[in-house]
Amino acid sequence: MTELTNRQYFLASRPVGEPTPDNVACRDVPLAPPGEGEVTIRNLYISLDPAIRGWMSDAPNYIEPITLGDAVRSSVIGRVVASNSPDFAVGDVAMVMGGWEQYTTVPAGMLNKLDENAGIPLSLFLGVLGPTGLTAYFGLLEVGQPKAGETVLVSAAAGAVGSIVGQIAKMQGCRVVGMAGSEDKCRWLTEDLGFDAAINYRTCGDYRAAISEACPDGVDVYFDNVGGEILDAALACLNRYARVAVCGWISTYNESELPPLANLWQLVARSVTIRGFVILDYLDRFPEGIAQLAEWVMAGKLQFREDVVDGLDNVLPTFLRLFDGSNSGKLVIRIPE
Amino acid sequence: MTELTNRQYFLASRPVGEPTPDNVACRDVPLAPPGEGEVTIRNLYISLDPAIRGWMSDAPNYIEPITLGDAVRSSVIGRVVASNSPDFAVGDVAMVMGGWEQYTTVPAGMLNKLDENAGIPLSLFLGVLGPTGLTAYFGLLEVGQPKAGETVLVSAAAGAVGSIVGQIAKMQGCRVVGMAGSEDKCRWLTEDLGFDAAINYRTCGDYRAAISEACPDGVDVYFDNVGGEILDAALACLNRYARVAVCGWISTYNESELPPLANLWQLVARSVTIRGFVILDYLDRFPEGIAQLAEWVMAGKLQFREDVVDGLDNVLPTFLRLFDGSNSGKLVIRIPE
Repeated sequence: MTELTNRQYFLASRPVGEPTPDNVACRDVPLAPPGEGEVTIRNLYISLDPAIRGWMSDAPNYIEPITLGDAVRSSVIGRVVASNSPDFAVGDVAMVMGGWEQYTTVPAGMLNKLDENAGIPLSLFLGVLGPTGLTAYFGLLEVGQPKAGETVLVSAAAGAVGSIVGQIAKMQGCRVVGMAGSEDKCRWLTEDLGFDAAINYRTCGDYRAAISEACPDGVDVYFDNVGGEILDAALACLNRYARVAVCGWISTYNESELPPLANLWQLVARSVTIRGFVILDYLDRFPEGIAQLAEWVMAGKLQFREDVVDGLDNVLPTFLRLFDGSNSGKLVIRIPE
Repeated sequence: MTELTNRQYFLASRPVGEPTPDNVACRDVPLAPPGEGEVTIRNLYISLDPAIRGWMSDAPNYIEPITLGDAVRSSVIGRVVASNSPDFAVGDVAMVMGGWEQYTTVPAGMLNKLDENAGIPLSLFLGVLGPTGLTAYFGLLEVGQPKAGETVLVSAAAGAVGSIVGQIAKMQGCRVVGMAGSEDKCRWLTEDLGFDAAINYRTCGDYRAAISEACPDGVDVYFDNVGGEILDAALACLNRYARVAVCGWISTYNESELPPLANLWQLVARSVTIRGFVILDYLDRFPEGIAQLAEWVMAGKLQFREDVVDGLDNVLPTFLRLFDGSNSGKLVIRIPE
């Protein structure tokens, strides 16, 4: 390997509220050869997800916060350019929890090898066949426990996770209502994905009234991606024994002051279960989840949108689009070979 | 039946914040004879519980709000003084959801007959062998799902429900930590009831630090009676997959403005389940619960305190003691025959 530099976007300071360009800085460092048992990949795809905002904070979380000075953490897919492990050869493609950088070096055991000749576009393993799809699959089916005939409400429904949640809920025989931030997104939900109704939360006015109208029989399962005022409104519309599956609260990641949940009391009034989860809770069932998601994708039963942006240097502004709702579909940075 | 009057304490206005004497008024009304299929009981015991505050508000709840002008709703035990049903004779003793009044008239099917010669003081059917004990039993075992070796934290631990929760948790082999509002109460928990540790929340200072110190291995089950700041502190001390059983939030019943729960995010960070419940969820299992509680009481394994106050005219000031923590044990009004 000739002498190479590794461009990295690293956490320079922890965000208070919404991340700003000041929180992430760029540097070029010499690329060291992989150590004993390690492998270096040249990144091809970097996944941008709301969860990254959580890891930027120095607060207890399901995995360690990103250390200041480290490359911002992301799931990545890359091609092996140097290997010090018998398990990987130069040219192999693999997925790993890496960073916002050109090259990622990790112990071989952390890499998941992917078959680039299987006819599946690689980026799908970061989305519908990866963490995104698995979040929807286990969150809806295991945490939400939807039954045929029940009403499922999904926030951020046109997002990468929400759009899959809604389609799986339809396959379970549920009435599905999505909330999204534009008329275009709402139309996509009802006309293309088969949602029974969609609420444009930017124009609907009173959230609670809008949810009640779209869910005349009440809400049995609420898949919550956003928290805050929409969660509070949804709490007021729940049926007895309703389940709230919480995979993230993008509306409050950036709030230092959280809004009170005036309707959290409905928990007791309606015997509601609110359960937080991360896909790591279902690690031993990933093969089952991926196989089922792949079957649905191949059969055309599961549609998905990717929002692919070229160039590592676009990583920060692209990440920030998650917080203004301007992305449509799973956000991925591509670094062409 | 000679002409009798019925003294009633009725809901005159809905409380905003803590109930005041203005919210409840007294009247004497002629007592009508029971209608077809109805029975009139002369009340002997009236149960005073935090849940009554919830029913005073015109907000969605698990049962209908108390109608303005109606006697305040309570579980009561009384002796039949007039019966228009073949199922009840004058002199029988029965329990029912009645009111703050001398006489309660209801359809016979709503009454649960009690055997006053069974050697069990009647008032226990409002407490440890009634709604109070069943709330502790099902809330801890079904919602909390404690396992031997786990740590169970209980707020309002010297209260009617909390003191039973802690003792049942000890019987499950758990480490049990209680929070209570005085040194006397804390001593009672550790010296008489077998709690492993007790926190005086009035003097402990920072709640989160106090809970962390008393629960060095973290909290696996939090039985929450109070909500508010103590709930928020407990959320920060939970272990992965912890369960929070919520049966009521006395600290916030009286708050028009709720404090935000800054640590609710721990729900996702630790894959926590928060579940609200009412004992009506377990209606079909009441006989099992009462039998088990009675067995423990008879065997001396379950201690309980009653705080019995004589006289219907003391009902409102006695009820208000629930909110300043000055009661010790299950609050009951007795109306001597």
